[in-house]
Amino acid sequence: MRLRVEEFIKEQQKEIVRELEKIDGKKFRVDTWTRENGGGGISSVLQDGNVFEKAGVNVSVVYGTLPRPAIQAMRVNHKAIDPDVQSLDFFAAGLSLVLHPINPMAPTIHMNVRYFETMDEKGEPNTWWFGGGTDLTPNYLFDEDAIHFHKTLKEACEQHDKDYYPRFKIWCDKYFFNKHRNESRGIGGIFFDDLDESEKDKENIFAFTKSVVNCFLPSYMPILTKRKDMPSTEKERDWQQIRRGRYVEFNLVHDRGTSFGLNTPNARVESILMSLPATASWKYMHEPEKGSREQRLVDVLREPKEWV
Amino acid sequence: MRLRVEEFIKEQQKEIVRELEKIDGKKFRVDTWTRENGGGGISSVLQDGNVFEKAGVNVSVVYGTLPRPAIQAMRVNHKAIDPDVQSLDFFAAGLSLVLHPINPMAPTIHMNVRYFETMDEKGEPNTWWFGGGTDLTPNYLFDEDAIHFHKTLKEACEQHDKDYYPRFKIWCDKYFFNKHRNESRGIGGIFFDDLDESEKDKENIFAFTKSVVNCFLPSYMPILTKRKDMPSTEKERDWQQIRRGRYVEFNLVHDRGTSFGLNTPNARVESILMSLPATASWKYMHEPEKGSREQRLVDVLREPKEWV
Repeated sequence: MRLRVEEFIKEQQKEIVRELEKIDGKKFRVDTWTRENGGGGISSVLQDGNVFEKAGVNVSVVYGTLPRPAIQAMRVNHKAIDPDVQSLDFFAAGLSLVLHPINPMAPTIHMNVRYFETMDEKGEPNTWWFGGGTDLTPNYLFDEDAIHFHKTLKEACEQHDKDYYPRFKIWCDKYFFNKHRNESRGIGGIFFDDLDESEKDKENIFAFTKSVVNCFLPSYMPILTKRKDMPSTEKERDWQQIRRGRYVEFNLVHDRGTSFGLNTPNARVESILMSLPATASWKYMHEPEKGSREQRLVDVLREPKEWV
Repeated sequence: MRLRVEEFIKEQQKEIVRELEKIDGKKFRVDTWTRENGGGGISSVLQDGNVFEKAGVNVSVVYGTLPRPAIQAMRVNHKAIDPDVQSLDFFAAGLSLVLHPINPMAPTIHMNVRYFETMDEKGEPNTWWFGGGTDLTPNYLFDEDAIHFHKTLKEACEQHDKDYYPRFKIWCDKYFFNKHRNESRGIGGIFFDDLDESEKDKENIFAFTKSVVNCFLPSYMPILTKRKDMPSTEKERDWQQIRRGRYVEFNLVHDRGTSFGLNTPNARVESILMSLPATASWKYMHEPEKGSREQRLVDVLREPKEWV
């Protein structure tokens, strides 16, 4: 499974980068790196593009020994991890993608899938699980975009299990939530973690994980194509900067993936923090005008909607 | 002591705001707020000024019941907090100041003092402590500024105890450290926490805390006056934005004060996050040129210096 996951995410990274280069016109910078304590990865980043302010598509395949809190950060069900051990041998392979388009009408997107194993004292695999998800963060809400995004995800989920979409949609709303602001990061999508043998067999879950990755292009590219060249005002671009500030807050304060990364010894910080936007701003007591499009977005972030 | 601390920090807030308005030419916005579960504060913020991109000088006096982890975030010595209690009655009064000047040659400054009490089950005060500190975050290093800043702090410390400056300077270098970047936030200053009866009596520590606050104007204003109108290039302003990104990283990932604030029920988030700069940026794999002034700063952030 380790090799199959690795092969799959590397292929997908290449294909996604190829499609993003087609729409942007500029090339990604590709860095291959190795981790001192085991493994490595490939970071593909495009900055100051024609369409993207910043776009990162990263693969990492790392293994070694980790302090227990770092592993726990990547698993909801902490009880599955022996409470008496202070560190664990692990294997983790993941594909992460965050795209911040220049146009304020085009939403930021995030997608991630990951496969974990932990080993017992003899080095034999004793637990495995898949996790992942994808969510959309618009600055301006276009209902048709939200519906298209969720509909594509729902259809992909239903190929595997008709409970997946409703379960993972709620999980996403709960996870990508800026608790201290009492608002969601965006309009959600799906999020799942700890999918292991108690859920379904490995083949089934791997197949589902693949569908999530395969969803990325059809769920996002039609939206981006429609929004990337829309006209925008300075005021709208300012609002985009404020929303980017909230994105930074979520990633640095709440995101378990970022926290896992920053707590992994010899982690490649530049690859972890490629998720941050190129620019962001914070304005004291900024409030959208009543009845404005900005206010409409905030209303929806306060109370997540059913889109399909 | 509660009343004396409150009176002192409110007076100082007014005086500091008055001086900052003099140098900026614009007025602070002053918001008085109350906290649902007890207490309140006064937030004074100036945005888009002539000298300051963003300047915040806040006072808060809050009390009530807090989950233990929130209190622990404000105390190094967790053993002093009964491990069996899940929540604690507390009182906290503090003055916090963060100034981000527009000119990239002018450093960001932070200063904070705080007084804490926790109560036993009968509501009687059973522990108290003072904490605080001040540190300077330049984008470009002027040795004379660093020396002036540290010298002013050293002299203030020495009025109280000749060990304070060396002890609290090292503590500051250790505290304001972006572990995941392996670099300091800035060129340090002083930081102290948990100063209680095991250190000195209450009057002595309060007197020292007052000196720290009184240091702010003489330690910073001469530097600001010298730097606020210096010419700068676009490249230098870009570097400032990147350094601001690092400031955001420290405050959101590592700062115990921010974490305490965001974990306090019904906290006023806008007052806590006034510490964030108005704008910041993140560039993938940005590296200063060898031998450049930018590189010199990074070298010093990697290996804190003795300035006096």
